[in-house]
Amino acid sequence: MARDSLVLAAGGGWYYGTQTASDPTRVASSTLPLSHAIPPQHDTAPKTLEAAWADFKAIVGEENISTTEADLKQHSGSEWSSYPTLPGDVPFAILSPGSTEEVSRVMKVCHRRRIPVTAYSGGTSLEGHFAATRGGICIDFSRMDKILTLHKDDLDVVVQPAVGWETLNEELAEHNLFFPPDPGPGAMIGGMIGTGCSGTNAYRYGTMKDWVLSLTVVLADGTIIKTKQRPRKSSAGYDLTRTFIGSEGTLGLVTEATLKVTPKPQNTSVAVCTFPSIRKAADCVFRVVGEGVPIAAIEILDDVQMRCINEVGSTSRTWKEAPTLFFKFSGTPTSVKEHISIVQKLAKSSGSQTFEFARNKEEGDELWSARKEALWSVMAQRKSDSDHVWTTDVAVPISRLPDIIEETKDDIGKSGLTGAIVGHVGDGNFHTILLYNDKEHDIADALVHRMVKRAIEMEGTATGEHGVGLVKRDYLPHEIGEGAVDLMRKMKQSFDPLCLLNCDKIVRVQRPKPGEVQEW
Amino acid sequence: MARDSLVLAAGGGWYYGTQTASDPTRVASSTLPLSHAIPPQHDTAPKTLEAAWADFKAIVGEENISTTEADLKQHSGSEWSSYPTLPGDVPFAILSPGSTEEVSRVMKVCHRRRIPVTAYSGGTSLEGHFAATRGGICIDFSRMDKILTLHKDDLDVVVQPAVGWETLNEELAEHNLFFPPDPGPGAMIGGMIGTGCSGTNAYRYGTMKDWVLSLTVVLADGTIIKTKQRPRKSSAGYDLTRTFIGSEGTLGLVTEATLKVTPKPQNTSVAVCTFPSIRKAADCVFRVVGEGVPIAAIEILDDVQMRCINEVGSTSRTWKEAPTLFFKFSGTPTSVKEHISIVQKLAKSSGSQTFEFARNKEEGDELWSARKEALWSVMAQRKSDSDHVWTTDVAVPISRLPDIIEETKDDIGKSGLTGAIVGHVGDGNFHTILLYNDKEHDIADALVHRMVKRAIEMEGTATGEHGVGLVKRDYLPHEIGEGAVDLMRKMKQSFDPLCLLNCDKIVRVQRPKPGEVQEW
Repeated sequence: MARDSLVLAAGGGWYYGTQTASDPTRVASSTLPLSHAIPPQHDTAPKTLEAAWADFKAIVGEENISTTEADLKQHSGSEWSSYPTLPGDVPFAILSPGSTEEVSRVMKVCHRRRIPVTAYSGGTSLEGHFAATRGGICIDFSRMDKILTLHKDDLDVVVQPAVGWETLNEELAEHNLFFPPDPGPGAMIGGMIGTGCSGTNAYRYGTMKDWVLSLTVVLADGTIIKTKQRPRKSSAGYDLTRTFIGSEGTLGLVTEATLKVTPKPQNTSVAVCTFPSIRKAADCVFRVVGEGVPIAAIEILDDVQMRCINEVGSTSRTWKEAPTLFFKFSGTPTSVKEHISIVQKLAKSSGSQTFEFARNKEEGDELWSARKEALWSVMAQRKSDSDHVWTTDVAVPISRLPDIIEETKDDIGKSGLTGAIVGHVGDGNFHTILLYNDKEHDIADALVHRMVKRAIEMEGTATGEHGVGLVKRDYLPHEIGEGAVDLMRKMKQSFDPLCLLNCDKIVRVQRPKPGEVQEW
Repeated sequence: MARDSLVLAAGGGWYYGTQTASDPTRVASSTLPLSHAIPPQHDTAPKTLEAAWADFKAIVGEENISTTEADLKQHSGSEWSSYPTLPGDVPFAILSPGSTEEVSRVMKVCHRRRIPVTAYSGGTSLEGHFAATRGGICIDFSRMDKILTLHKDDLDVVVQPAVGWETLNEELAEHNLFFPPDPGPGAMIGGMIGTGCSGTNAYRYGTMKDWVLSLTVVLADGTIIKTKQRPRKSSAGYDLTRTFIGSEGTLGLVTEATLKVTPKPQNTSVAVCTFPSIRKAADCVFRVVGEGVPIAAIEILDDVQMRCINEVGSTSRTWKEAPTLFFKFSGTPTSVKEHISIVQKLAKSSGSQTFEFARNKEEGDELWSARKEALWSVMAQRKSDSDHVWTTDVAVPISRLPDIIEETKDDIGKSGLTGAIVGHVGDGNFHTILLYNDKEHDIADALVHRMVKRAIEMEGTATGEHGVGLVKRDYLPHEIGEGAVDLMRKMKQSFDPLCLLNCDKIVRVQRPKPGEVQEW
């Protein structure tokens, strides 16, 4: 067969290619093993990009294209990301389209010219999600930041991708409504969909996956689709909405989302209790969950985390530096009172040392404020530019939670690094926030590796809510098996045959270099 | 290019084919329009099936293969299905494998020989899901009916596909646990995953989509994959679990499922209230949902439905033949009492005529019994073999519920058929159960068509919980647009390049015959 032939689609390669398939019988198979994937063939030659520039200018306007070095850097990494952005990981330009139509036209240019694309909204993700590993362009959604329509009676709202969840909730509060997913401050709907995020409200309300009714998506070839209309329940065909949620910008670009909202709980309260050991605290969580007490949130902060909060001094009181559980309750005043009393009993029988609950909203906000300060209080411990934080998360079946938290805490202790544990423990999900300097990178790396391995060996996951990005790709085969990863690769190939969209994230599309993958 | 070449994968055809692509540039595109799909080329020649028979016998044993006419008929249609099974819609044989491994080996034979496959568990689906439109074989999961492992502490249970939800709940009740999705009696986990079912508990607990942690799936080429481990929360890669839920056996065969379970509510109660009109009843639902009252279920039954229940006389009392709402409450005794009183107030202000609530469990069961009898009480009205029922469902944004129910009821009235309305109205989802005889088929068909069209025009869906099957395929382009359907077709092609699995369901894979598609 001729080289450069357009019909060279056999073997499941990433084509439009110049290579033939290594094994033509794979054409009828359901998966795409890495050994059969043909590396993407992008075109980021200066000549191509120059020609594309003219196209882009005509679509979004020159004022909406940036190539300043600071912008390029800021759009490909962050100081809170665990992936150390490499010098080559920057895009050629940042485009800020103003509409779905413009995004589609940009993608058509990139598709025709084979230019890779990364998407950017809040930039708060942690695992290297928006590093431009293949160059190309970055699509920044900042101009698409409108709350378009609130259907108050239907309990849904239509938004653009650069709406922040905090802004959205301010707006919704005026209508006595609220949108539960609460990831890190600054996160925006586009990225929240990309990582399938969650937060402290997930125990009661579920994750981002449960709060999206429908998406407008621009596919890799510029096709615009809408995944659903607005019914709250549907069995009409494949769950395209869910397919895009958590796909980290690799299957399509979300340009509009219809989100579910819910009436704001009329009454909430907070209780905080401390324990002599992290195991006793985790045991308590396990009991409360097992009893099915309807709680809004259960968070754990370890003694190190509480110490960091005290040291930063950003909350109005000094906390006991012990493993601490934060409970949030919501419901009618009577039911909240009832639930607090059940939890107090369970905490006591798990060996709690103190149990405080808020008597009014102000006290509740004050108690909860410590939880909110967690990440920032550890970041504040950095003394110089060579100090970094590494925030990562895993999740396990809830019965293994006491084991994994205790083992991880021991391991951090032995490493000599400062590391705090904080987590959405009602879901069996927790984070470590490690403080390390340039010289200690490998120690931190090894700690994270052992924590992930531990989680997977306990039938858990490499990531409960932060996503895979570049950092956790090589754990997927251990977690779900090669076959399931090969099926993900086949999906990626099907949606994006040229591998233009956030290439290299979630699944590898070409073999790693020797030494690139850590030993299991 | 040579005919019969294995490398002929361009154009997005369904190959392993003997045709070249109609448009080779589509190789890099993200969707597969029907006009570009090459019709599946199965091999169901007697010679092939005879040869396959020997393979199947070696895999599952002769005693687990059936070709009796009664079995073939029973495995391709039912008297409660809205799709009238055609004479050619029967499989060649029914295989009953005993393990995931056997299913995989069967699929490898089918893949090699290009034999199409339909899957069968409870057989309760309604839209022609298991009609064997292409012949081939039926895989009956009846031998895979075990509850494998209950992880009580982790609130999950591992089951095989032919476990019924009722049996599962009997088992779970001994551990004070429960599994919420409650579709029609007799439904089994395999099919429940296939249709992404729900039921009366969905308003409070969500649908099947929310209660599956992980699936073991045999793909079209026999590859066995597991979608996840057992953490309750995960962001690790594409949501393969959700991709298979609601895929109606077209993307893979589920051979094992890990389901979430939850503590059984300690107290439940039921209230029943009647209204002077269906609109007033629907208005009441709309208010209760808007207030965010935490209710376990809200069901509506219209006057016709209540009359059918009285006529059958299978409940212990005679009901007022008026539009009726059934509410289920769960929680602590105090909160249940509180919620009943809020709902009673809202019902009154919506114009309710009567409001009864149960004082104990027996009274609650008695009140709820009428809801359970709905479908069967209409089926009991059939007088001869030429009488049939047509059960179908749609869902709309909740604010449109009063409109669509009222318009549909009017339409049924004008048609001259008996038709009852019953629905999970808290989700904006309702069913009509139409009684018709052979001569009235077209009247029923037209009524359903108008009901679906009405739902789609109100930004709703052609099906809230029954699925697409054969009956609702041609509504999808109207509901979500051609592009989204073309993306579903691309997914289907990617997972199942030979179109072996439940071919023709959800998305068409070849152009319809003239007159086959109803005018919109």
